[in-house]
Amino acid sequence: MGTPTILSDLGTEILIPICAVIGIGFSLFQWFLVSKVKLSLDKPDGKNVFTESLIEEEEGINDHNVVQKCAEIQNAISEGATSFLFTEYQYVGVFMIAFAVLIFVFLGSVDGFSTSSQQCTYDSTKQCKPALFTAIFTSVSFVLGSVTSVISGFLGMKIATYANARTTLEARKGVGKAFIVAFRSGAVMGFLLAANGLLVLYITINLFKIYYGNDWEGLFEAITGYGLGGSSMALFGRVAGGIYTKAADVGADLVGKVERNIPEDDPRNPAASELERGLAEKVFGILNTEVVNMLQVIADNVGDNVGDIAGMGSDLFGSYAESSCAALVVASISSFGNNHEFTAMMYPLLISSIGVLVCLLTTLFATDFFEVKTVKEIEPALKNQLIISTVLMTIGIALISWIALPNSFTIFNFGVQKEVKNWQLFLCVGVGLWAGLIIGFVTEYYTSNAYSPVQDVADSCRTGAATNVIFGLALGYKSVIIPIFAIAVSIFVSFTFAAMYGVAVAALGMLSTIATGLAIDAYGPISDNAGGIAEMAGMSHRIRERTDALDAAGNTTAAIGKGFAIGSAALVSLALFGAFVSRAEITTVDVLTPKVFIGLIVGAMLPYWFSAMTMKSVGSAALKMVEEVRRQFNTIPGLMEGTAKPDYATCVKISTDASIKEMIPPGALVMLTPLIVGIFFGVETLSGVLAGSLVSGVQIAISASNTGGAWDNAKKYIEAGASEHARTLGPKGSDAHKAAVIGDTVGDPLKDTSGPSLNILIKLMAVESLVFAPFFATHGGLLFKIF
Amino acid sequence: MGTPTILSDLGTEILIPICAVIGIGFSLFQWFLVSKVKLSLDKPDGKNVFTESLIEEEEGINDHNVVQKCAEIQNAISEGATSFLFTEYQYVGVFMIAFAVLIFVFLGSVDGFSTSSQQCTYDSTKQCKPALFTAIFTSVSFVLGSVTSVISGFLGMKIATYANARTTLEARKGVGKAFIVAFRSGAVMGFLLAANGLLVLYITINLFKIYYGNDWEGLFEAITGYGLGGSSMALFGRVAGGIYTKAADVGADLVGKVERNIPEDDPRNPAASELERGLAEKVFGILNTEVVNMLQVIADNVGDNVGDIAGMGSDLFGSYAESSCAALVVASISSFGNNHEFTAMMYPLLISSIGVLVCLLTTLFATDFFEVKTVKEIEPALKNQLIISTVLMTIGIALISWIALPNSFTIFNFGVQKEVKNWQLFLCVGVGLWAGLIIGFVTEYYTSNAYSPVQDVADSCRTGAATNVIFGLALGYKSVIIPIFAIAVSIFVSFTFAAMYGVAVAALGMLSTIATGLAIDAYGPISDNAGGIAEMAGMSHRIRERTDALDAAGNTTAAIGKGFAIGSAALVSLALFGAFVSRAEITTVDVLTPKVFIGLIVGAMLPYWFSAMTMKSVGSAALKMVEEVRRQFNTIPGLMEGTAKPDYATCVKISTDASIKEMIPPGALVMLTPLIVGIFFGVETLSGVLAGSLVSGVQIAISASNTGGAWDNAKKYIEAGASEHARTLGPKGSDAHKAAVIGDTVGDPLKDTSGPSLNILIKLMAVESLVFAPFFATHGGLLFKIF
Repeated sequence: MGTPTILSDLGTEILIPICAVIGIGFSLFQWFLVSKVKLSLDKPDGKNVFTESLIEEEEGINDHNVVQKCAEIQNAISEGATSFLFTEYQYVGVFMIAFAVLIFVFLGSVDGFSTSSQQCTYDSTKQCKPALFTAIFTSVSFVLGSVTSVISGFLGMKIATYANARTTLEARKGVGKAFIVAFRSGAVMGFLLAANGLLVLYITINLFKIYYGNDWEGLFEAITGYGLGGSSMALFGRVAGGIYTKAADVGADLVGKVERNIPEDDPRNPAASELERGLAEKVFGILNTEVVNMLQVIADNVGDNVGDIAGMGSDLFGSYAESSCAALVVASISSFGNNHEFTAMMYPLLISSIGVLVCLLTTLFATDFFEVKTVKEIEPALKNQLIISTVLMTIGIALISWIALPNSFTIFNFGVQKEVKNWQLFLCVGVGLWAGLIIGFVTEYYTSNAYSPVQDVADSCRTGAATNVIFGLALGYKSVIIPIFAIAVSIFVSFTFAAMYGVAVAALGMLSTIATGLAIDAYGPISDNAGGIAEMAGMSHRIRERTDALDAAGNTTAAIGKGFAIGSAALVSLALFGAFVSRAEITTVDVLTPKVFIGLIVGAMLPYWFSAMTMKSVGSAALKMVEEVRRQFNTIPGLMEGTAKPDYATCVKISTDASIKEMIPPGALVMLTPLIVGIFFGVETLSGVLAGSLVSGVQIAISASNTGGAWDNAKKYIEAGASEHARTLGPKGSDAHKAAVIGDTVGDPLKDTSGPSLNILIKLMAVESLVFAPFFATHGGLLFKIF
Repeated sequence: MGTPTILSDLGTEILIPICAVIGIGFSLFQWFLVSKVKLSLDKPDGKNVFTESLIEEEEGINDHNVVQKCAEIQNAISEGATSFLFTEYQYVGVFMIAFAVLIFVFLGSVDGFSTSSQQCTYDSTKQCKPALFTAIFTSVSFVLGSVTSVISGFLGMKIATYANARTTLEARKGVGKAFIVAFRSGAVMGFLLAANGLLVLYITINLFKIYYGNDWEGLFEAITGYGLGGSSMALFGRVAGGIYTKAADVGADLVGKVERNIPEDDPRNPAASELERGLAEKVFGILNTEVVNMLQVIADNVGDNVGDIAGMGSDLFGSYAESSCAALVVASISSFGNNHEFTAMMYPLLISSIGVLVCLLTTLFATDFFEVKTVKEIEPALKNQLIISTVLMTIGIALISWIALPNSFTIFNFGVQKEVKNWQLFLCVGVGLWAGLIIGFVTEYYTSNAYSPVQDVADSCRTGAATNVIFGLALGYKSVIIPIFAIAVSIFVSFTFAAMYGVAVAALGMLSTIATGLAIDAYGPISDNAGGIAEMAGMSHRIRERTDALDAAGNTTAAIGKGFAIGSAALVSLALFGAFVSRAEITTVDVLTPKVFIGLIVGAMLPYWFSAMTMKSVGSAALKMVEEVRRQFNTIPGLMEGTAKPDYATCVKISTDASIKEMIPPGALVMLTPLIVGIFFGVETLSGVLAGSLVSGVQIAISASNTGGAWDNAKKYIEAGASEHARTLGPKGSDAHKAAVIGDTVGDPLKDTSGPSLNILIKLMAVESLVFAPFFATHGGLLFKIF
């Protein structure tokens, strides 16, 4: 079957872990560089202090006090985020264990918990390991995936909260310095996550191989649990984080506006802060309006770190793990697996390995080869990262496709083996990679206030909130067109060349520059936090101008990150869907059969159901906050008069508990749907559900994210007043600005809660179906069996 | 092949036209009853005047003056609507002729314009009529369908504008009298449309049969043009009407608010009215604030009549024509067609015939058997209409299935003949019928302010427009769930029993009570207009209370009507899609092929593209209005000071022209997509596009309609202040009410422009694909042929 690969199996065994270790090393080195910015007063970084002129020194402000304040604020943010994540992880930990047991029971029952070897599914002449052991290993890889996902999110949060105050301090030295700290910290997260995901997967495969030996079919079937674990944690992270941050916002707003007519930023409003009151007092001694303002900023920042950083980290890790699993499981029943060609089999991991090296080189362009000196250079520097990594990665893919693949091989294509050339697989990965770039640029066009779409939305604020909402929704709908064509073209090319394997590697292509993507993505909330800290620490106007400029670029890159996440989710889901269909032993999914069609239409409905739930959740969580505040006003004497102190801890607890509780219904919808449909209606209907939710969910996800991003930036456009046109709409507090604020508030749950969770919905249902496919194929479709 | 039918062919030939004529006769009789309410002063209806006590007489108001005013206002509305529709029809007339030629050229080219007989598509042992003649007959039936659709819409508008003032006048005698006039007028439209559609279709089939003889395959292929004609006219009617009415609203609002700070209802604002100034002067002599207020109401009323009446009429006629065509074309290649069983072949038309009789009986329940005496009885009376017609129709279907079908027969199912029993077909029709009732009730639950969903939305206005918009969007998303399950169950049952024929007759089942559905639906705008006229004519508060009660019930029924239209559209589209696939000679539509999948995902995107276009169109049309007003302020001396008169005629012309112009891009998107995809990508991709747009479009259509309806009724709930809870939110002008108004404005384009057009989008693309299927099958897929 084709020529042997240039890269030997031993070479592969060495190359993958080495790349992963290089990635981790690079990440730690970046962390070291960031840590050189000192937050402690005991050991001032002598060199910096003496060679750079600080704005504070120019303006004669006491530097020591500022540094200490920054350190304390950073500490508060970090503690708040850590405390919330620990609570969240306790609950998802219980879920993880329960679901691992469920996987074991369901998959073990496929062959009646028999410990004897069974006939293989695809090659009935061979013997495969018993289903019982595959059930155990799937549960184990599920737990590993979950834990890796949780760690990825947690570390990301830790790094971001470590970097934010340091970025603020560096802003005193210049915008370039601050940019490098923020970007380096993003890179720490990006590389740690990408390299860690790769390494854990690689080690798991090698450990499982000790048991499975030559039964690669069973081996890679068990590995799919890794993807399921990664994505299920991401779902809870995204939903809970999204609800948490928005509940705090909306709750504080409601309390101030509706109850007792207290202004929202009044210190007597206990919901104004998400942090323990004790903490606030420790830092600032007394509680006044300024303190409450600051606490609100901290609340926002905690929310950003648990949602945008931890959630996004888990999300992209999930996509990465799932697309690798989808590719591996298809490869295991193609010529790579049948002939036990290890190097070719590891092609998906090799792409990611090369990706780590390419991203490393790309990062140097931003941090070492070129230097950002002025505000205007920030956004191009970030955009160049995308372009450079894509161009370099194209060469990297070509190289890997050349050395790690036989000239010609076969790929399993729903029952038949399809012949594929190595250059065709190169094109599959490449088309995914470049489609990602296109989606990124289109997202930027529709959400950055440098272009006409957002400016038109801002302009529509002139005539009130209603036109703002109409134009924003229309913008979101319109922004779907080009990304869908880009996804459609990549699917067509990769599918035609190499069936579902092609789609899986196209997804991997889009995610191959994940380290750079995440670096850019994490850069946003870090800069956002840096600005907040600068404001709270009472730094000068000039420093805030610098952090605001960093933040503005971050808004756009956040939208680009969401675009990547959604685009790759579409490809990943399709690949998983294909793998599921193969494993469930059906060869066609014919829309023109009643079982499939009802699945298709119900599946297309699920994203709406899910969105309705998450959007309502934000409202209910906020309402609980209002009730608690009402209770405090009625039971704490002197609170209304400002003589007594409100009970902050209870408010924080309520926000946390509510977001944990509210994440359950949408989580259950996603996790139970494949199980219920598979068990009662069988694999054909489930196929329909997966296809329907995929094609419908990707549209809502893109439009919701972009609509929200556009409203946010339209508001910022009016606030910044950077152009003649923008100034006619402003300033802050004008009618147009008020209308823009309403749009921004509507957009919050769309872009931070429901939109980014939808791509996890479609991936997760697909990977769950794949994991349970052997069970559904054996015991599924109960309803149709009865009637 | 089974036993002969109980109903003879001759019986069928007599029964169908008789039912149609009874329907038309009943409609004319209802019209006669409505016309007994006199608007002229010369011939007062002696009996009524003397036997009933009029409120005006009690209050001593001059009755003659009021009657004359009503007549003049009614005249103004009718003239405005007629003038707009004539302009619209001129443009769609050009389109109609051009598209008829296109059909002829494309279909004629299938067999190279040869005049010799060809081998039949499905039974290659037989000879069928040449493709050239089928091309001619398809073009002819397309024109017939278009003209019938246009006439249906136009007559509906005429009846509605005839009835509105009469309803107002009857309100003086009591709410029951007014209700009967409004409902009877709705029935005039409902029966005229249902019976007319049936009769024209029946006559066309019989005329075409003279040429086709025993070639039923060709005959019913040519008949599909009838459905295409009906639906394409509906699309333009819905879109243009929707833009027209919203452009006037938003335009007037913008001008008042933004330009020169003139209050919107100021007489110096020329956009405040959609009617010619001359007309206004003729009626009222002078132009003052009150006049302008009234003109705005008229503008709304004209919009209602062209959008909700004419558009909805064309829409439901299109659905009816398409589902009949889909059923007929499948039947023609099943045992009915192969054995030339005329009665069984006419089963779809027989269902509609019985439907006319059942609806006739149902109408009597509202107008004769029971009498509405109090305001509270109105909504139950309308709901009972739905229940009674559904129950009676179930019996009717059972009867027709028993006498018009053989015990057992075969239905063409993608290449094979499937055996079906007559009771199974009864169940297919029945499940569609009852699914319609469920959809109607769910829609009512989510859009009526008598239930908690809308009350919750109203409650969210307390915290501002942003929460109102969030809750409204979430409500719309949630309202999709049950209707989709209802549609899925009907599809599953009908598809399983009788393949695509089953789905087509399920759609017909849902539409079998179309006369009652349309009566209820048309009742809404008529009552709305009646209220407007009462206000303008300066009638007493007590009369307005009565018309407002009629109107409130009408809001809910309007939403129910949209629910029916969308639900039936989903079934119709699937049936047409199935017929297309059969005609295009493909046997499976496998999602797991690249050609189909890219179609699926791009198809799911089309409703978003379409919505973006229509929502933006409202904005652009309104903007043109603003520019014109700005020009008038700058060029007409004395306008600003109130000494000169604004140029109303130009404003009306701009609104009309803009809506005509803006209907072209969305129209082109819908009409060109099937052609482009079919010609360049072929029938597999086109199948994917149809399935994708169907499953995605139906969700957006339901959620958009219900969100808009809920916002509208939440606003009305606050305004009416009928409950303790509602009063805490109001009154008019409160902060909560202002927030509700913003929601209502956002909902306008959703519920009146993009939402109701989406169901036409999915039907129209399917029927167009079916008509052009022979061409695509022969010449399609150019791109794939080249590469």
